[in-house]
Amino acid sequence: MPTPHKHRIAQLQNLIRKQKLDSLLVTSPVNWYYLSGFTGDAGVLLVEPRGLTLVTDGRFTTQARQEAPDLAVRPQKEGLWRTCGDLLKRRNRRKTGFDSEQMTVAQLGALKKASGSGVRLVAVPGTVQRLRSSKDPAELALMRKAAVLASEVVGAAVELLKPGVREFEIAAEIEYQMRKRGASGPAFETIVAFGPRAALPHARPTGKQLKKGQLVVLDLGAILEKYCSDITRTVFVGRAPAKVRAWYQAVLEAQAAAIDRVAAGQTGGEVDAAARGVLAAHRLDQYFVHSTGHGLGLEVHEDPRVAKGQKTLLASGNVVTIEPGVYLPGLGGIRIEDDVVVHRSGSEVLTRASRDFIEL
Amino acid sequence: MPTPHKHRIAQLQNLIRKQKLDSLLVTSPVNWYYLSGFTGDAGVLLVEPRGLTLVTDGRFTTQARQEAPDLAVRPQKEGLWRTCGDLLKRRNRRKTGFDSEQMTVAQLGALKKASGSGVRLVAVPGTVQRLRSSKDPAELALMRKAAVLASEVVGAAVELLKPGVREFEIAAEIEYQMRKRGASGPAFETIVAFGPRAALPHARPTGKQLKKGQLVVLDLGAILEKYCSDITRTVFVGRAPAKVRAWYQAVLEAQAAAIDRVAAGQTGGEVDAAARGVLAAHRLDQYFVHSTGHGLGLEVHEDPRVAKGQKTLLASGNVVTIEPGVYLPGLGGIRIEDDVVVHRSGSEVLTRASRDFIEL
Repeated sequence: MPTPHKHRIAQLQNLIRKQKLDSLLVTSPVNWYYLSGFTGDAGVLLVEPRGLTLVTDGRFTTQARQEAPDLAVRPQKEGLWRTCGDLLKRRNRRKTGFDSEQMTVAQLGALKKASGSGVRLVAVPGTVQRLRSSKDPAELALMRKAAVLASEVVGAAVELLKPGVREFEIAAEIEYQMRKRGASGPAFETIVAFGPRAALPHARPTGKQLKKGQLVVLDLGAILEKYCSDITRTVFVGRAPAKVRAWYQAVLEAQAAAIDRVAAGQTGGEVDAAARGVLAAHRLDQYFVHSTGHGLGLEVHEDPRVAKGQKTLLASGNVVTIEPGVYLPGLGGIRIEDDVVVHRSGSEVLTRASRDFIEL
Repeated sequence: MPTPHKHRIAQLQNLIRKQKLDSLLVTSPVNWYYLSGFTGDAGVLLVEPRGLTLVTDGRFTTQARQEAPDLAVRPQKEGLWRTCGDLLKRRNRRKTGFDSEQMTVAQLGALKKASGSGVRLVAVPGTVQRLRSSKDPAELALMRKAAVLASEVVGAAVELLKPGVREFEIAAEIEYQMRKRGASGPAFETIVAFGPRAALPHARPTGKQLKKGQLVVLDLGAILEKYCSDITRTVFVGRAPAKVRAWYQAVLEAQAAAIDRVAAGQTGGEVDAAARGVLAAHRLDQYFVHSTGHGLGLEVHEDPRVAKGQKTLLASGNVVTIEPGVYLPGLGGIRIEDDVVVHRSGSEVLTRASRDFIEL
């Protein structure tokens, strides 16, 4: 049975050859999971033109052999970097790439010491991340499920919003509902922000109680079979003032303009500009204090970025969030976020919750 | 009102002066939270002899001003490292320390480029982590609460273990119970491992159903007001064979020996050796495939380490886990874990669940 891993490994080995490297070190858990299926969180994966070797510690050796039959598993001795360096030296891997966006300065120092002067370590940032940014059909199928799951949960959470409930109670229910539906957990710390706290884009749930006349921002994501979703909805408790409705419509319009712009060959910067332009027309752009979106997949923030000035072209199979918002210090905030797949011409929205303004 | 932050900042500024640095860059969220109370997860904190400046992006500026009155907040322009580098250059911080265990090779490259040749960047690993490893009384009070919370949850989870339940159902209940008791979430992905899966020290919950005659390992931790707890209990479903009881007693004895050894002035290596020695006497040491424990605090793995050969002396105020285990591939595993504070003479166990062997 051909596995997606074999295909991914072949792609990576191809890139290694093109860059004239003897090998490449993969040092992030999510990257080695993508290449092999190993779910442990400590080790180093050495990718060579003809095979993959995982160096890891005793907690993970049995697990790695079960999960990742494509790997040779080598238990570390006297430390991870020591074993790794010895391996590079012994196999004469003179030119070895490492991911400079993942490896710390201290790790590189330890590895250099262990591998000695015969091995040149070359910074090769983001190679596996770039492979990961184009999802294959099996990945997209999982991401559809993760997005639908998050959409159901956001709907269930809105039902629970009654004056008197506390932010952390709603957050607890949200994460419980995710797990009940098969998620392994939240993709990030769930945001439940009432009233003025909604003016903080990244508010953490507190013991604050909900009052009539407040905006509520719910921002949540589920991890389902390793893949993340991410959705935000904003509702008003009571009848909203005309001003608040107008802000909501402006954000919704900005989001629609950005989603409309998503397609292979557009840049992340162009998509961002579409949202920002609409908010500027409503004189709200000064309150839009973050980027329009980010890539989504095995990580909740990954390539490609959807932000001011981003020049990288979107490609078929990318999945991005589109999440403009306005934040009015002291008053509250409004954000609307959905997950979108980039297709050759146009896009597909994965999340499935209504975007109509809800007044509870 | 004097805050713990002022004291911590003063300690750090003292260390900076001693190392003849003009400033120190703090690049990890947990470290700047410790120093300032800022809970955002993007930015850089510049610590200078007479003040602290946080460079961050628009998502976090309002939040930082609310949470951390001791900081000057400076919104980033054209990227985090660019703003940081400009600041170092403009303030003439010729010798600036950075944490080489936190900073990636790519970040250091970007910062060097932005700060120019007039600023020397010096690797100063682990300074704030070392401060964090000695907990003050207020921190210990929170950690006691977090440990009691986790102990209650592990007790509640044992009650749910009936043949037919699935690993992920128990994990969902565990995390829900944590949040209901006020935790902001799990400190790590909850481990619920039935039967042979318990032979993997870091098993992830699956859809596997519990059967009579299986060992169950429950390993969970809660984050309460930012501080982590970590507890493991192992139970048997049905009447355990004599062999399994003997293994359990050996692990329990190993844990008791290690806890007995915990005190200021002992090394992590000595504590580890105490556990390992007991298991060797039972001829089980080859099945103990990980370290005896790790430091615990704002992070679930932090200083000090309790592992083979560790020579650093334990100090009053350290909090460590003590968690020996045996893992028999194909059969299952047994681990018992508690959280322990190091005192001047002896120790204090924070977790509160019975360690008697439970047969359900």
